[in-house]
Amino acid sequence: MSTPSPKGHPSPERIYSLFNAFQQTAALQTGIELDVFTAIGSGANTPALLAAKTGASERGLRILCDYLTILELLAKEDGSYALTPDSASFLDRRSPACLAAVAGFLGADWHSQNIRSLTAAVRKGGTAGVHGDNTKPQDEVWVAFARSMAQLTAPAANFIAHMIGAPEGQPCTVLDIAACHGMYGITIAKRNPRAHIVAVDWPAVLTVAQENARNAGVAERYETRSGSAFETSLGGGYDFVLLTNIFHHFSQAMCQTLMWRVHAALKPEGKAVTLEFVPNEDRVTPPVAAAFSLNMLVGTEAGDAYTFSEYEQMFANTGFTNTTLHQVPQMPQRVLVSEKSS
Amino acid sequence: MSTPSPKGHPSPERIYSLFNAFQQTAALQTGIELDVFTAIGSGANTPALLAAKTGASERGLRILCDYLTILELLAKEDGSYALTPDSASFLDRRSPACLAAVAGFLGADWHSQNIRSLTAAVRKGGTAGVHGDNTKPQDEVWVAFARSMAQLTAPAANFIAHMIGAPEGQPCTVLDIAACHGMYGITIAKRNPRAHIVAVDWPAVLTVAQENARNAGVAERYETRSGSAFETSLGGGYDFVLLTNIFHHFSQAMCQTLMWRVHAALKPEGKAVTLEFVPNEDRVTPPVAAAFSLNMLVGTEAGDAYTFSEYEQMFANTGFTNTTLHQVPQMPQRVLVSEKSS
Repeated sequence: MSTPSPKGHPSPERIYSLFNAFQQTAALQTGIELDVFTAIGSGANTPALLAAKTGASERGLRILCDYLTILELLAKEDGSYALTPDSASFLDRRSPACLAAVAGFLGADWHSQNIRSLTAAVRKGGTAGVHGDNTKPQDEVWVAFARSMAQLTAPAANFIAHMIGAPEGQPCTVLDIAACHGMYGITIAKRNPRAHIVAVDWPAVLTVAQENARNAGVAERYETRSGSAFETSLGGGYDFVLLTNIFHHFSQAMCQTLMWRVHAALKPEGKAVTLEFVPNEDRVTPPVAAAFSLNMLVGTEAGDAYTFSEYEQMFANTGFTNTTLHQVPQMPQRVLVSEKSS
Repeated sequence: MSTPSPKGHPSPERIYSLFNAFQQTAALQTGIELDVFTAIGSGANTPALLAAKTGASERGLRILCDYLTILELLAKEDGSYALTPDSASFLDRRSPACLAAVAGFLGADWHSQNIRSLTAAVRKGGTAGVHGDNTKPQDEVWVAFARSMAQLTAPAANFIAHMIGAPEGQPCTVLDIAACHGMYGITIAKRNPRAHIVAVDWPAVLTVAQENARNAGVAERYETRSGSAFETSLGGGYDFVLLTNIFHHFSQAMCQTLMWRVHAALKPEGKAVTLEFVPNEDRVTPPVAAAFSLNMLVGTEAGDAYTFSEYEQMFANTGFTNTTLHQVPQMPQRVLVSEKSS
């Protein structure tokens, strides 16, 4: 639906499709809201069966499911619908990897309102909304984020736990900055019974992380420190500090202020582990990581999707060496590992 | 940005991208609003030069232009931007084919509000908005449409004029039902100096068509009849009746009611020429034509993107034969030509 025109043969179809791209988001949200993916996965695979199951109209469901088929979230054959591998894994509520809860954050009004003020944000060079200063708690945003986004973190959380050797079971202490739902630290604690986690975030957000730690059976090795990562006491002597999806909210100067605090909290040869959207140096590839920058324009004062060379420089400026870059499989994010210089 | 996962390797990236697809629409609209395409086409090809030209911030413009590059509406090399064939043709206001005015209709609030009530429309089986009954004038919608969309019609209008032999210059009378901006009939009148056009639409909309006919120099061969196509006197003895983008607003029963009136207005062996979004019989291909059905779900009581077999049946039921289907080059629409049976 958004195939570019072949070079030299411009077509208005592409422009027309982009004007309507917002319908793709709406169709996904409606599909989740009416739970048609779970219904189809459970065998209600025609408009008539779906209408009986969901209480919505047969005509509306036929048109919605045709549209979701165009988006390749469903397959259609002889008038019957089936889930695709993506929707079976991530949109059927019976799947352990279901992402339907993500709609609570990515579908939130404040998120779409930020985008609707894009023109004002481009004029100003930063958010035109009211949630842009992430040195403040912003509970409305971040508690919703913590409650909604945990499932989306599974691939990166497993990747990081493996990368820092959690399965080897060596004793270690891990500081999880801006822990949010806590799933990065909790995944390490689950893989390594001798890992001790210290999570930092705003008090209201930490209650979500603590709940997740209890549910994961690691609460006795899960400590919290509430407050701003820029101000609260972080403790010291950590083997690892996790910095997952935090730097993109801030200016490079603020990132370096934080990284100095991380440096002080690590033991000698300790490692900082950063999870981020890291576009290539051209800032336009790979597409999803590069596009993330737009979120930071509309949602923050001075945040960005920084490139690897920008991170390497920021980390070198704050006492780190040997920063390496690792792609998270199946996800648009990358992990940077940096060593504290002695 | 919306590549489906390879079969058997589901990835959350696809779902994540669809949640953010609405950003594509916003970025296109902001690009048009700040006129960055014209600015880049005129040589302001870096964030600094664009900031000087548009008055917007350098940071905001850099992030916006990177995003527009990801959408393939711009190209980027060594930090400089250039137009692509699509944006040079359709988004630079200096281009005669510029579609920027389309933003006035496709970007209108009532259009995005319709989509935001998609869930309610699926439940009900028809629009949850207030503009759904297209047997009423709905001036707010259709005058905006007439003023905004004329340029987008050029490929189809030229295709139809050629198809009915306008360049051959034979005397002919053409009834243009729901004429809107009038460009389909006006294009025929321009190509054939012996063609006489009768345009039907609501009075407020016809003032736009008359203005366009004057600007095209064909006003003396351009007659209007105001009112509902279902009720007003259409006249008779026409060689051709144009039905461009009208049937999709109505139920099949209403379409046939209209087609009986068309039958009565044509001379023997006269032809009805229909321009429509006609999906294949599977209703999910080709993507843009099939996706149009969602617009009709959220925007009308009972409209749809009908298939060729549905049109063929509706036209056969109302006294037409030999309905043929023709793809409009470079556009998602198709033309159906049907002969009045004698």
